[in-house]
Parts: sequence; structure tokens; C-alpha cells
Amino acid sequence: MKLYNSNSAPNPRRVRIFLAEKGLSIPRIEVDLAKLEHKTAEFSAVNLFQVIPALELDDGTVIGESIAICRYIEELYPEPNMFGATPLERATVEMWQRRVEWHLLLPIAQVFRHTHPHMAKLEEPQIADWAAANRPRALRNMTIFDDVLGDRPFVAGGRFTVADITGLIALDFTRPARIAIPPELVNLSRWHEALRARPSAAA
Amino acid sequence: MKLYNSNSAPNPRRVRIFLAEKGLSIPRIEVDLAKLEHKTAEFSAVNLFQVIPALELDDGTVIGESIAICRYIEELYPEPNMFGATPLERATVEMWQRRVEWHLLLPIAQVFRHTHPHMAKLEEPQIADWAAANRPRALRNMTIFDDVLGDRPFVAGGRFTVADITGLIALDFTRPARIAIPPELVNLSRWHEALRARPSAAA
Repeated sequence: MKLYNSNSAPNPRRVRIFLAEKGLSIPRIEVDLAKLEHKTAEFSAVNLFQVIPALELDDGTVIGESIAICRYIEELYPEPNMFGATPLERATVEMWQRRVEWHLLLPIAQVFRHTHPHMAKLEEPQIADWAAANRPRALRNMTIFDDVLGDRPFVAGGRFTVADITGLIALDFTRPARIAIPPELVNLSRWHEALRARPSAAA
Repeated sequence: MKLYNSNSAPNPRRVRIFLAEKGLSIPRIEVDLAKLEHKTAEFSAVNLFQVIPALELDDGTVIGESIAICRYIEELYPEPNMFGATPLERATVEMWQRRVEWHLLLPIAQVFRHTHPHMAKLEEPQIADWAAANRPRALRNMTIFDDVLGDRPFVAGGRFTVADITGLIALDFTRPARIAIPPELVNLSRWHEALRARPSAAA
């Protein structure tokens, strides 16, 4: 297997953190987004949607989408379990993974994509009004997650799951998006710090 | 179990179609989005993110997010299989479900949400420039899916899966979004017609 990766993008980091939590290592092929290498014919043959990460299996089969890659790896290497161990837990983890992705990562990413000068070539056109609409959404949803995290250490419950990886990616993304996490959201900040303190966060 | 539903929104329809394909029926509680019933304290106690669908189990546990609900039902009622039967097929189905969701449903939904008068109360502010940026994205991605569907009857391969349900939702959503599916995309249109012809499409 080999992993098409970029260290400057959030989605490949989800897979790198997941692999680190599993104690796994997969050879990487770097794709330089600043040089638009993901837009080349060569990379389009790997992933026709021109996005990373992508996992190429030894027979040439390619799995795209970070969460699909992580789920595949979970099936090959079940421990530690990060997608849930029972039908209800699997549904719960998927629910929280999706909630974090759609209600936290997406609005934060939209602020970043539509304001940051580095994105001018990649997000055309950048729309300041759309960034401005997403900023209060991101902050409002942070408040909801802060409430949720008042009674549990991790977003899906008592233990670390793939939903927390999406959470770390989202909250770390507030920095380039220039969104300050309100200091009164103490549960959210405690969660963020706990995720950042795990060795996998450096992956 | 009971399903919080609205017949006027695309995401609950994903679950209704999934249930119909399984030959299942779950009692429904209607949530009137036009009356903002999803924003009430009563419904927020069911789903703090104020979105439908939501599946309430007999013990009061609530599963939100259409795909998490479908996956839970798949585990309780495995046949016909719609999430994949092997690790590789499950990863492939999830990849395609996510690709359809992010690259087709999302841009089409953004055009709808930011142009349709019915959304004025629900999507504030409506940003015409953001709708205009998503329209060509939706059309470009339709072209990619048309290519993909040149060598297969269903989007994830040889058989109907949950990824096709997301596809039907996305393509049906072009109508209120007022995006015409280009007639030269014959594979995409053939797929759309095949999905619409299934009895589950009426669910």
C-alpha cells in the first residue's frame, strides 16, 4: 500500500493520525498542492476528483476519501477500535464523526478557504460574504460541542474514536482560519488540549 | 423505533428510500420545517443540532445523521446489503457515498439554499455569488460522474448501494435548484432514470 499525502492539508492528516493511533506506517507519496500537482493528469489518474488523501493498494486499486481509507484500515487492523465495537456504537461514532465534519470542520474550512491568501488559486472565487456567514456558524457550533463535552471526555463518549480525529483537525484549522476559540468554552478547550497532547497529533 | 421525518427535505428521504429497499417500515413523526418546528426546544431535545432525520430507539437513544441511521439499520437487517459485503467493498461504497455527497449533493444544495425563496428564513444570508460559484462546480462534477458511469450500472459498481441513494437525492435536487442536467451526459441521465424507476424512489 502507499498513501498519497500532503503535510499542508487537513484531510491527509486525518489518515496519518489514524495510522499513528494504530501504530502503523504506510509509505507516502507527497503531492505538492501549492504546485497544483493534484490537478495534473498523472494524479487525476489516481483520483479523478483531484483530492488527497488516496490509498493505493498493491494491485493498483485506489481508495479515496479519508474516512473510507480509515475504515478500510480499521477492518485490516481492528485494534485499537476507533469506529465502534457494536452496531449502536458504530452508528454513534459515525453520527459524531459526521456532526464534527459538517458542523465544525466545514464552516471553519469555509472561513479559511474564502479568506486566506494562500487559497486564492485553489478557491476561485473567494467570497468574503460567505466567509463572514460561516464564522458565526463555526462559533455557535463550538458552543454546542462545548455543551456536549461537558459530560464526556471524547466527543462520541468515553473513549477516543475517529470522530475525535476529525475534531482535532477542525479545531487546529481555526488557527489558519483566524477564528479564536472563545476561552469560556472550557470543555471544548480541554478536549482540544487532550487531543493535541496525544503522540498521534504530531503525525 | 420511530423516525423524525419531513417529506420536504432531502436527507430524511435518504432514510425512507433505504428502508423501502430493505422492505422495512418505521413509524414516523413529522417535523414541519416551514413552521421551524426543528428549531423548537422540544425537537432540540431530540437532536441538539436541529436537523432531521433522527431515529429514536425504544430506550430513548437517538441516532442522528442519515448515513449513520442507514448503517445502523443495515446491521440490524443485513439483506439486501447496501454498504458492502467485504472490507474493500465497504471502503468503496463509503468512498462513493462521500464523493456523491461532497461533489454532487453539496454544490447542488448550495445553489438551492442560496437562490430559492423558500430558503430565505432557513439560510441567512442567502449569498447569490456563492450560488453562482457552485453552479459550474455542480455541472463539472456531473461530467465526472457521467464518465464514471460509462462502465458501470451503479455509482459504486455492479449493484445498487447506499451511494446510489445519495445520487438520486442529489440529482432530484437539481429541479428545485433549477440546474438543468445537460442532455449530453447520457450515462448520468441513464443512472438517474434507473434510480427513479425503482419503487423505493416514491418513499
